[in-house]
Amino acid sequence: MAVALEGIKILDMTNWYAGPFCTLLLRDLGAEIIKVERTVKDGGEGPRKNTPATKAEESGAFIQLNRGKKSVTLNTTSPQGRDIARKLAQKVDILIENFTPGVMDKLGLGSKELCKLNPGLIYASNSGFGHTGPRQYDVVFDPVAQAMGGIMSVTGYADGTPTKVGAPIADLTTGIFTAVAILAALQYRNKTGQGQVIDMSLQDCVFLPTAMWCGPSYFLEGRVPQRFGNGDEWLTPANLYPAKDGYVYIAAPLLGQTQNVFKTMGRADLLTSPLCAEGNIRIKHKQEIDELIGEWTKTKTVAELLEMLKKADVPCSAVPDFAQVCNDPQIKNREMVIEVEQLLSGKVKAAGSPFKFSKTPGNIKFPAPFLGENNVEIYSDMLGYSEAEMSKLANDNVI
Amino acid sequence: MAVALEGIKILDMTNWYAGPFCTLLLRDLGAEIIKVERTVKDGGEGPRKNTPATKAEESGAFIQLNRGKKSVTLNTTSPQGRDIARKLAQKVDILIENFTPGVMDKLGLGSKELCKLNPGLIYASNSGFGHTGPRQYDVVFDPVAQAMGGIMSVTGYADGTPTKVGAPIADLTTGIFTAVAILAALQYRNKTGQGQVIDMSLQDCVFLPTAMWCGPSYFLEGRVPQRFGNGDEWLTPANLYPAKDGYVYIAAPLLGQTQNVFKTMGRADLLTSPLCAEGNIRIKHKQEIDELIGEWTKTKTVAELLEMLKKADVPCSAVPDFAQVCNDPQIKNREMVIEVEQLLSGKVKAAGSPFKFSKTPGNIKFPAPFLGENNVEIYSDMLGYSEAEMSKLANDNVI
Repeated sequence: MAVALEGIKILDMTNWYAGPFCTLLLRDLGAEIIKVERTVKDGGEGPRKNTPATKAEESGAFIQLNRGKKSVTLNTTSPQGRDIARKLAQKVDILIENFTPGVMDKLGLGSKELCKLNPGLIYASNSGFGHTGPRQYDVVFDPVAQAMGGIMSVTGYADGTPTKVGAPIADLTTGIFTAVAILAALQYRNKTGQGQVIDMSLQDCVFLPTAMWCGPSYFLEGRVPQRFGNGDEWLTPANLYPAKDGYVYIAAPLLGQTQNVFKTMGRADLLTSPLCAEGNIRIKHKQEIDELIGEWTKTKTVAELLEMLKKADVPCSAVPDFAQVCNDPQIKNREMVIEVEQLLSGKVKAAGSPFKFSKTPGNIKFPAPFLGENNVEIYSDMLGYSEAEMSKLANDNVI
Repeated sequence: MAVALEGIKILDMTNWYAGPFCTLLLRDLGAEIIKVERTVKDGGEGPRKNTPATKAEESGAFIQLNRGKKSVTLNTTSPQGRDIARKLAQKVDILIENFTPGVMDKLGLGSKELCKLNPGLIYASNSGFGHTGPRQYDVVFDPVAQAMGGIMSVTGYADGTPTKVGAPIADLTTGIFTAVAILAALQYRNKTGQGQVIDMSLQDCVFLPTAMWCGPSYFLEGRVPQRFGNGDEWLTPANLYPAKDGYVYIAAPLLGQTQNVFKTMGRADLLTSPLCAEGNIRIKHKQEIDELIGEWTKTKTVAELLEMLKKADVPCSAVPDFAQVCNDPQIKNREMVIEVEQLLSGKVKAAGSPFKFSKTPGNIKFPAPFLGENNVEIYSDMLGYSEAEMSKLANDNVI
């Protein structure tokens, strides 16, 4: 099947989430990903050992993040290993790394050096705070970026603690933003032949989505955005309401939708009240509205509520757990859960791709590589090392 | 300044968040965005009226989302308006829309029709559940997609409610994913001259990040991922801890980091205990570890804790509120808060761009357009309408 990024080669010197998620997306779009890992002696990428794992001890997270990529082993702490990395960087279109700033420079693999060797190289870095500024050298994990990007301060309830998002959204949004940046740089390279350096920060990538929602209150009125639980400062009704057997989310902030909620409740009498007025008046009655709706939803099951509200064109939802989401007919229709065939573990489920293309659907059902699975292909075919040379490099713990 | 997406023209028929956020990113990268809005008589895009607004009644959210875009007015409910939309679609590289599936088809502006007129057109759709599957026609707002994508079920505390992320993460991640898809399709078009149809769903775009974290537990072991508050099922120590005057987040799941936490606490005695063993043993003592650390952090201020922990190379963070984040020296260094000069409102603050490029930094400090500000430029220069024709179209409420 045709792929969008046909022929694009990416040297992937990333670990864990932000970087590997970025290259997973680019792999789904058809790029060739050469994942550089520590040698067999040094254990490969850390996440290979993560739990939960299959019976054959293949990590589920590793499989999900790395399906379809190629794996080569390389010891960049050795001078010979660094030399090989420099050779690889001259054979690819894109290099991506997510070490703490300074690390690649110390290895002689910094952007200046490699872009001199390969002026067409797109050199993309992910780091916690970016490659500039006072905190650039701090070691950052996802929750630190969630905190410092501001999203933690506005997630959760006003009377509770700031709350982390239940997925590593700092790492993952940075991965997506970095893919955008890389593809934009590729467009520039197509026209000019020139590569360039991209410097993405986890903090920036959390801040931007947070600010897109919370910014105006602070920027225009100087008010500090608070936590609103499942509600919202500017919209009502929009909240999580209790049902007999669970919860429903009702999001009906447009006037017609609000009217439909009240009609469905049998409270047409409220249509002329301030509770059903235009947004800015209605929002003052948020608490009253939430209480009224909650009293009503409590008397019905989730299924009853969804049926009644959907009939009235009111956006609403149950709150399925993750297993229910995976078995949702819509998620199944969209092939968002796939199976890959791992040689050792057999069929393993993994998340699918959100990219639905008419002409370049690609194929994403590839297994994750064994450690060093593609050493021969890359070191022999791409760089021209002989069997004897590779054997010596392996013995010397270089590859 | 050079831009990455020089010369790329995008017809933007989107409303509110997912779509406009996507085209904002593409604008930051240098594309020309022609934002299609309802006519002056019909009020333009809804968010122009949103609060908070400047004294000149320009919406802060609208400015943030639309800075640097061009605005044309067009009434697509009139046959003449649709005809103009079809003409515009033949002059651009990319069209993006986020109506409920079926709406564009009914207007005669569906992907089949427009891609026939312009075979090079990349036609990208955003919708709640995508353009396939049993729920494709449901009306969806962000929290519905957060619920149905699974992230709500794993955000918040085990003994509390499922919790919405404090920013419209469904809309915003869909916007970023769609930008990735569009740029990949552009790469394909560069090679083949062919456009194609892209179909992105909010639910898919929430599900993927959620599944990247929660998937393995369910896919490999059949366990349903739960809510862990600020903690994590697989990592410890990694939690929010109380300080004398606030909270600190400590993320020290690597063995060396855990050891450094205990050393910093003056508890070197724990280094040989199961609380400081390798990951899988240590995780069984998560609660004990959290309690011990919490007892220690309670006795110190946030500033004291950060100083001690950073000295020991332990990833940690305060939890600044949004105002503090905006004034963070690192965020300032990265220019993540910018000012744009609105003709009516004067200087207005807005979120900056996370894309830091060495050769195509672009310029993002442009104001949001007046409604129909670019009608003459687009309708006269691009489509060739005369002044008299445009005047008639305006009188007829077509533009």
